[in-house]
Amino acid sequence: MEQIERLAHVRYTSGDELAEALVGADALFVWDFQSSALERAWHAADRLRWVHIASAGVDPVLFPAMVDSEIPLTNSRGVFESSLAEYVLGVVLAFAKDFATSLELQQQRIWRHRESERIAGTRALVVGTGPIGRAIAQLLRAVGMRVAGIGRRAVDDDPDFGSVYPSDELRTHLPDADYVVAVAPLTPATEGMFNAASFAAMKPTARFINVGRGDLVVTPDLLAALQAKTIAGAALDVFDTEPLPADSPLWSLPNVLISPHMSADVKGWRNALVELFADNVQLWLQERPLRNVVDKQLGYVPTGAAARPAG
Amino acid sequence: MEQIERLAHVRYTSGDELAEALVGADALFVWDFQSSALERAWHAADRLRWVHIASAGVDPVLFPAMVDSEIPLTNSRGVFESSLAEYVLGVVLAFAKDFATSLELQQQRIWRHRESERIAGTRALVVGTGPIGRAIAQLLRAVGMRVAGIGRRAVDDDPDFGSVYPSDELRTHLPDADYVVAVAPLTPATEGMFNAASFAAMKPTARFINVGRGDLVVTPDLLAALQAKTIAGAALDVFDTEPLPADSPLWSLPNVLISPHMSADVKGWRNALVELFADNVQLWLQERPLRNVVDKQLGYVPTGAAARPAG
Repeated sequence: MEQIERLAHVRYTSGDELAEALVGADALFVWDFQSSALERAWHAADRLRWVHIASAGVDPVLFPAMVDSEIPLTNSRGVFESSLAEYVLGVVLAFAKDFATSLELQQQRIWRHRESERIAGTRALVVGTGPIGRAIAQLLRAVGMRVAGIGRRAVDDDPDFGSVYPSDELRTHLPDADYVVAVAPLTPATEGMFNAASFAAMKPTARFINVGRGDLVVTPDLLAALQAKTIAGAALDVFDTEPLPADSPLWSLPNVLISPHMSADVKGWRNALVELFADNVQLWLQERPLRNVVDKQLGYVPTGAAARPAG
Repeated sequence: MEQIERLAHVRYTSGDELAEALVGADALFVWDFQSSALERAWHAADRLRWVHIASAGVDPVLFPAMVDSEIPLTNSRGVFESSLAEYVLGVVLAFAKDFATSLELQQQRIWRHRESERIAGTRALVVGTGPIGRAIAQLLRAVGMRVAGIGRRAVDDDPDFGSVYPSDELRTHLPDADYVVAVAPLTPATEGMFNAASFAAMKPTARFINVGRGDLVVTPDLLAALQAKTIAGAALDVFDTEPLPADSPLWSLPNVLISPHMSADVKGWRNALVELFADNVQLWLQERPLRNVVDKQLGYVPTGAAARPAG
């Protein structure tokens, strides 16, 4: 943050003390991307002209007053794409090669040969066609998987997805997929899109991978689908409650891989987040268009978007 | 095997009864690729003209009398390449994304965020440049890793490896690698090539992946290197003794992933092995050149090799 401290007066604060620190502030860098403190402190934002968040998903700061304001919101698009795509490929391979069973047998010192699965030729449906979904599609395609996307609008010849189908056709395309990857932004339109009907539409051999947001999923429906073997497994990095409570039945379901919202967080990610913010600070001070401006109605950064600071 | 039974009189036998069954046999299909039964039964091979093995590695049937004979040996090259490459990519990602710790914490219902690693830009040294090594190189390169090979002869501009360095330069190139993949055939030249000096040449952050043969490695040296943290981890699918004995210290070393010689065995692999043999039976009956003829001096199939049946 040193370079930013040379350019501006910087206050560091916590969620609890945000209201006090927000008085007189021109810009806010939301480091804790899950915090809902901004909504509570909003009354104290007397001269706020810019909010930046250290994440790709912006749902915690898209409360109605923020959406209605003219204050631009920017996110950290560009930091997470490649590492998150690697994580998704990793869990695809973990399922196909049955690493969880290998590790379990290893703990018991049991040598038990099993047959595994190829990933080449299998089908992935990536739900969410933003930069992260696109990076996932590119990587899965690079290893020989057949990829399609679910996005806002249909596209016939997308370079990464091939076909992108519109969201209202989700259930039409779920039955084709061996792997369903949830990476859509959390918006009123996507909340709970993975529900009992969605899981019922999937193959009994399919695996569900959530690297988007926990609230894309109706968790009791996912639990029921896993318990009834409506689907074959799930890799979950995000949850409707985080940390995942110790008494959640998800922890101990067979064929479920749990990780603690870390899929994109490779060594150096904190530096990358601060560098992206520092670059935007430079643009902001020069009154040039900011990078990664969120369309607050859509709830994410439309491709190629940039904006001038407000006020 | 039905199609073969229509073409020839087929006897099925076990290792113990091989000598009896071998009398009068023209061809032998060695299904148990780890069996040393052929050497013990060799005296009974009164008219044997062809041996085929259901594996890529041929070390168990390359005993001196077989090497010295004019009987051609063919292997199952073509069945294992792609699935084995996927397995190697899977363990690379399992290390980079620290899946073993995630699974361990999951069992304890502990939510603990950690930072993981990118694989793009990391360096893999693939030791063995046959078809399996080549498939591994292609796949690792497809996901953005930097790959080099160790082979019999130096090559400057190999399409898959970029650079192939000769085996006697192994230790010169080990220090560059983040992942060292052992996939060389087991021959007198490669036996024990991964010894204390090799591990000492590797980075302390490097991972060693053995999908070749257990005897490529001096196991006590590998154990010592893992215990002393000379290297950061190992993924082992093959062992000098298989099944790996329950009292082997390898089972419980941290950062070691054990699998039971299954890396290439995807659903349908047995059928693929029989089909390859059946194709060769057709060629053999027509006295046409066989596929996958092993150079018994080298101990593997040189690129593009074919041969007519002997006798």
